[in-house]
Amino acid sequence: MPVNRQWKLMHRPVGDIRQGDLQLVESAVPVPGPGQMLVRNIYLSLDPTNRIWMSDMDQYMPPVEIGDVMRGGTIGVVEKSNNPAFQPGDIVQPLDLGWQDYVVTSMAQKLMVTPDLPILAYMSALGMTGMTAYFGLLDIGKPKPGETVVVSAAAGAVGSIAGQIAKLKGCRVVGLAGSDEKCRWVVEDLGFDACINYRTENVLEALKRECPKGIDVYFENVGGEILDAVLTLINLEARIPLCGLISTYNADGPVPGPYMFRNILMKRALIKGFIVIDYFPRIAEFAAEMGPWVASGQVKWRVDVEQGLENAPTVLNKLFTGGNTGKLVVQIGPEP
Amino acid sequence: MPVNRQWKLMHRPVGDIRQGDLQLVESAVPVPGPGQMLVRNIYLSLDPTNRIWMSDMDQYMPPVEIGDVMRGGTIGVVEKSNNPAFQPGDIVQPLDLGWQDYVVTSMAQKLMVTPDLPILAYMSALGMTGMTAYFGLLDIGKPKPGETVVVSAAAGAVGSIAGQIAKLKGCRVVGLAGSDEKCRWVVEDLGFDACINYRTENVLEALKRECPKGIDVYFENVGGEILDAVLTLINLEARIPLCGLISTYNADGPVPGPYMFRNILMKRALIKGFIVIDYFPRIAEFAAEMGPWVASGQVKWRVDVEQGLENAPTVLNKLFTGGNTGKLVVQIGPEP
Repeated sequence: MPVNRQWKLMHRPVGDIRQGDLQLVESAVPVPGPGQMLVRNIYLSLDPTNRIWMSDMDQYMPPVEIGDVMRGGTIGVVEKSNNPAFQPGDIVQPLDLGWQDYVVTSMAQKLMVTPDLPILAYMSALGMTGMTAYFGLLDIGKPKPGETVVVSAAAGAVGSIAGQIAKLKGCRVVGLAGSDEKCRWVVEDLGFDACINYRTENVLEALKRECPKGIDVYFENVGGEILDAVLTLINLEARIPLCGLISTYNADGPVPGPYMFRNILMKRALIKGFIVIDYFPRIAEFAAEMGPWVASGQVKWRVDVEQGLENAPTVLNKLFTGGNTGKLVVQIGPEP
Repeated sequence: MPVNRQWKLMHRPVGDIRQGDLQLVESAVPVPGPGQMLVRNIYLSLDPTNRIWMSDMDQYMPPVEIGDVMRGGTIGVVEKSNNPAFQPGDIVQPLDLGWQDYVVTSMAQKLMVTPDLPILAYMSALGMTGMTAYFGLLDIGKPKPGETVVVSAAAGAVGSIAGQIAKLKGCRVVGLAGSDEKCRWVVEDLGFDACINYRTENVLEALKRECPKGIDVYFENVGGEILDAVLTLINLEARIPLCGLISTYNADGPVPGPYMFRNILMKRALIKGFIVIDYFPRIAEFAAEMGPWVASGQVKWRVDVEQGLENAPTVLNKLFTGGNTGKLVVQIGPEP
């Protein structure tokens, strides 16, 4: 008889996530009520923002409460439905997010799965990851043909997509990633013009070399020293979509902002924080442009799939050590 | 026989400006060539940005070269003219900027001086100072009625104007200034809703008290700890026109950015550096709205006039110690 395993938040982590901060608890599979459906989760999305939700810092959504199921996006299959809009076998993104085998929900987004657009594409380029890259780059970064776009965490889920979109918009695109292997993937497979290994190169010198005309757009995922190096080289009226600051999420004390903060003034630059949910009303715009790019292979995507819900907390740490390439996903159960 | 005194930059200051960094040199009054005019300067504008121009940091205009006349905005009277568009007696802003008694120039902006709009108004609310406040607040800050606007250096040249414009736009306006006397002026004469003395109060606690609905717009002139306190309290989609960072200009080493930098991400806030010259093409828009406000007294302005070109470097330091209230000006010679 199947059970529902759920990861619950027991303590707010201090610094790195430690064993005991989360606990795997078993309970009965829930029963859908009127208008509801039972979804068996197949894939769980692991994102840097999960770490923010575990903390009680001031943030853009309420933090996960102690004792609650850990929040996280999933894709699953409808097993039972009391909602006429959904049938057993439908592949959906439930709007109730959680690190768990099963969820009962009354609302979900149905996915159009085809051979060109498999389920995992919706965990990456066609999902929240792709939307984050698309709107952050285009709506805030506003890249113009011929401009230079720098992307940090370029081999990560969002960065790898953002850089490809910038190429499609006619820009010179320079990535930053944490290994030579990641850099090779970014340049040879994704078509970035260059990629800097920030662990082995002097980032400022390397950026000077690869961005001889300065930096017009910086798609920011990491913060810290890389942001400082970029700010040193921005052009007048540069735009910086601020998508993430992963280098700071595990900090257990205050982190100074960039030392070159003053260049935002000197270069009349723009920095704008954003979150993909701001753009949900514009999802049709995204689907219309990104769908064909993904189906035709003009935008490539890669998932790093680890097995087993029980491993989710350990797998999440890969994001902070740079262990993943592309979108990090945990497979909870088999595709139908 | 009159001479032309000129302040020349001899060394780039390290930290505070010291004696010997600038030198007062005398030469003959220059003679205007064809199409040129001779202007006798009356008032010299002293601005925080003067300190930036003395350094060779990366900045929005070329720095002043060693040995050159120090750059600074003036208003003067035409004494001789070989340009049919200008007559002796015209009050003008020469486009050639300098800390000097006389300048020969071929281009200047003629000012419409009236009893309601005296010469000094053009050094303040109707000049670059007013334009900086007007466009920074309205074009970047975009305040909406009922929102809370915080202004640092609220008793300074730009801040005092920015806060009054925000009041005219229907906002709750909270200033920060460095003395109880300045705060009284800001609240009682200028009509701000509140003013915090940042030298005697805990800024974060005081902002919490005065901004019970959070902060929607922050007109930033100073940087440092005040910026951190504001970032702690910003609302979702807050806007921060970045006009100046005066607390950092005299630093002789790297200055960390705000520790609450991450709140730009968490609150999806916008920061945009700007400089008034970006808005010169829109001067008519400014004059149409600000002219009547100033003439009718709806926007008040104050100048802190010190006497004598020879005192300019000493007077400039008042900006960094908070010694001035309103716009700081040096009178070089008599009004005609």
